[in-house]
Amino acid sequence: MADAMEKIVSLCKRRGFIFPGSEIYGGLANSWDYGPLGVELKNNIKNLWWDRFVHRRDDIVGIDSALIMNPKVWEASGHLKNFSDFLSECKTDTCHNRIRIDEYLPVQERDEFNVRMAHAVSLYQAGDIHEAEIAEIDTRKWLHEILLRIPCPVCKKRNWTEPKPFYLMFTTFVGPTRDEAAIVYLRPETAQGMFVDFKNVLDTTRKTLPFGIAQIGKAFRNEITPGNFIFRTREFEQMEIEYFIPVPKSDKEWQKYFKDWQKEMWVWITEVLGLDKSHVHELEIPDGERAHYSKRTIDFEYDFPFGRKELYGLAYRTDFDLKNHFKEAPYQDKETGEKIYPHVVEPTWGVDRSVLAVLCDSYAEDNDRTVLKLPISLAPYKAAVFPLLANKPELIKLARKIYEDLRGKFMVAWDERGNIGKRYYAQDEIGTPYCITVDFDSVEKGDVTVRDRDTAKQERVKIAELGDYLREKVSR
Amino acid sequence: MADAMEKIVSLCKRRGFIFPGSEIYGGLANSWDYGPLGVELKNNIKNLWWDRFVHRRDDIVGIDSALIMNPKVWEASGHLKNFSDFLSECKTDTCHNRIRIDEYLPVQERDEFNVRMAHAVSLYQAGDIHEAEIAEIDTRKWLHEILLRIPCPVCKKRNWTEPKPFYLMFTTFVGPTRDEAAIVYLRPETAQGMFVDFKNVLDTTRKTLPFGIAQIGKAFRNEITPGNFIFRTREFEQMEIEYFIPVPKSDKEWQKYFKDWQKEMWVWITEVLGLDKSHVHELEIPDGERAHYSKRTIDFEYDFPFGRKELYGLAYRTDFDLKNHFKEAPYQDKETGEKIYPHVVEPTWGVDRSVLAVLCDSYAEDNDRTVLKLPISLAPYKAAVFPLLANKPELIKLARKIYEDLRGKFMVAWDERGNIGKRYYAQDEIGTPYCITVDFDSVEKGDVTVRDRDTAKQERVKIAELGDYLREKVSR
Repeated sequence: MADAMEKIVSLCKRRGFIFPGSEIYGGLANSWDYGPLGVELKNNIKNLWWDRFVHRRDDIVGIDSALIMNPKVWEASGHLKNFSDFLSECKTDTCHNRIRIDEYLPVQERDEFNVRMAHAVSLYQAGDIHEAEIAEIDTRKWLHEILLRIPCPVCKKRNWTEPKPFYLMFTTFVGPTRDEAAIVYLRPETAQGMFVDFKNVLDTTRKTLPFGIAQIGKAFRNEITPGNFIFRTREFEQMEIEYFIPVPKSDKEWQKYFKDWQKEMWVWITEVLGLDKSHVHELEIPDGERAHYSKRTIDFEYDFPFGRKELYGLAYRTDFDLKNHFKEAPYQDKETGEKIYPHVVEPTWGVDRSVLAVLCDSYAEDNDRTVLKLPISLAPYKAAVFPLLANKPELIKLARKIYEDLRGKFMVAWDERGNIGKRYYAQDEIGTPYCITVDFDSVEKGDVTVRDRDTAKQERVKIAELGDYLREKVSR
Repeated sequence: MADAMEKIVSLCKRRGFIFPGSEIYGGLANSWDYGPLGVELKNNIKNLWWDRFVHRRDDIVGIDSALIMNPKVWEASGHLKNFSDFLSECKTDTCHNRIRIDEYLPVQERDEFNVRMAHAVSLYQAGDIHEAEIAEIDTRKWLHEILLRIPCPVCKKRNWTEPKPFYLMFTTFVGPTRDEAAIVYLRPETAQGMFVDFKNVLDTTRKTLPFGIAQIGKAFRNEITPGNFIFRTREFEQMEIEYFIPVPKSDKEWQKYFKDWQKEMWVWITEVLGLDKSHVHELEIPDGERAHYSKRTIDFEYDFPFGRKELYGLAYRTDFDLKNHFKEAPYQDKETGEKIYPHVVEPTWGVDRSVLAVLCDSYAEDNDRTVLKLPISLAPYKAAVFPLLANKPELIKLARKIYEDLRGKFMVAWDERGNIGKRYYAQDEIGTPYCITVDFDSVEKGDVTVRDRDTAKQERVKIAELGDYLREKVSR
């Protein structure tokens, strides 16, 4: 299956979907640039998401908040106090391998580690800073003892430095000086924007519960081990909704909203992205392994060529965030007048992971051709227009006219190189659903050959009806 | 005119266009969040731009490159060696005012300063690092002497610290350590992505000169004096095209492309953004004041309420960037086989400045109402639907049906609060071009009242024809 991944990475580079970032300078640790076709595929996903969840729903509005926020946001959210990642380095002279310790702990120790961390975080949140620090130091010592029983995966020696907390957030300095007071962070998630702006959105839209705030944007995590193409990168894009619900009087009440979103995510996965349902799996995250803010989390995992990995997440964040950000309850019930902290159900979609899953699921090889069987609404080009022969002005002229007409409505490719077979091959490889060939009959009879990417079947369509023909296919 | 700005900022906050960033924590030095209406206005601008310059043109393709690039990119681009910003601090105990020195130099000294800086940069580019450093130290000393003749604008004393170079780029650390080798920068412009990916784009699209690469994305500058609402912020968004042209054999040859883009930018300004032509002015940037890479620059300035300031820029970057990034000429002429470094004309549009100019130009007060006379294609909502009375189920039902039908095609608002006059007022203020009222006649005769935002004129339109009616207006 690693082979499949290599083929996809190679296709992406060769056809302009995704390039290694800063490639002419030897790259930059797993950063990637979207090329001319990749940016169209990615934009199609983002636009369909926005249209579906913001434009077509009464109960969700969008925002676009700044990437760099006041550092107090990250104190309140728990991101600055969350030690869950510890790092150690192999002291062997020739090795110096660095590991994220939690990934190497045996199951039982990992459970204990999670319990200890949850305890330290809860002490912090309760304001027992001193107790929390003692708990952390104690855990670090305990962690080192366990670690020294585990051989280095590279040099096989047991020679580890003391565990150090590793901060996932990128830091930078704002303003002219570089002192402590100037430290700010690149956001590790878009979510906090929706919480911090909650009251401003509420006041300007007069929404009543339940309602959601949506955002698409970049987030940054200083991952120790990025990898697997665009799967885990330090710079990535999220589509996220914070869906605010009334204070639940029972578990059943929040579970109802949770289930609604679970269903919505499946519809998105199967109907919009067109992923094969059997390649996607729900993983219920057990107690002790969830993020500090979550009372229930489901991961949607996809069978990538490199293994079953997280695609999307759905979490019940309770009132954790709004309580930490707002001293006073920010929502007033219109009927009872009561002031409350709404609870939150949060569905999160990775943009880059969506692109990757779609590429993996669409990639097919049959009869000596490579085909990206992209859903039509996601394909960069909806159609390609060819003159049968490149040296016949009357064919070029008519094909060009068709191309220009269609281009006002859809993204359309033009190709006049080589023979028709080669052009089909080239369009199949980038997922263009329809190829339109203009031949001598077209000039005389006013129809063209339309060839279907997936079935390779051809039919004649009247030139005057091409726009409607494609529109009907695209909107399906 | 400051009053006008206050009114716009207030409207933006009150109606959900733009909020102060991290407001609940006292903000963060001039950062701003786009609210539910602001994000729609901004997305409309970005989508129209992408559609116009990428989708509808054969000669331009898009990319989306990583924000964090290999630091060598910024060495090659000159950003790391460009000292043009020097900072000094007033040593007076009670003052400590910080200034960007170049903003306080008398005209003659500023000219000399620019010449000196250009000289130091050219030494760097020629590889004479030592000579360049001496030139820089010398300039710094000279600068301090001049500065000591200028009184502090705050405390009026002449008590300045030695000038320090101020780096406009944000630095952060990638990976687990925080040493020199781990330093990376947040990009100060999107442009370098297009240069670094030039060959990858060329190889995957087989474009021939002239052709362009377009990108929309965030950029970051650690400005000393951000301000004027979203005009100058440390985090901002750009729409940029690097338009690659054959090596010009005469000035006339590149000027032709320059003029084409100059014209394109005027069309965008007047026809797409709908700005009053008399509010926009070209400023030819004279020798010695242009960026180090530019042989000609025109700024498009807009008459903001706080003064005439840069809106967009158009620069002839020559082959400066490609020569610095590529050791070998990256483009081969298909006919002559000759390898060349294409030259570059670069039109740049600020996204946030576009939003601000549109808001300023659209803002009007007449007859006790506030109206945002936004171009229809930019307005967040294309129409609003009202039931005449909120307590008549038959009106609600029909209005709701119309609302649902239209919402599949356009962004549409719903309002049933207060009286019709108040609803008109509320929609005028956010720039909704058409208000559709469903009354008792609508139920009987199947038509509705459509009221025009700008003229306040009303006409009856058949419900069945509403979609086409609006489509025709929107696409105009």
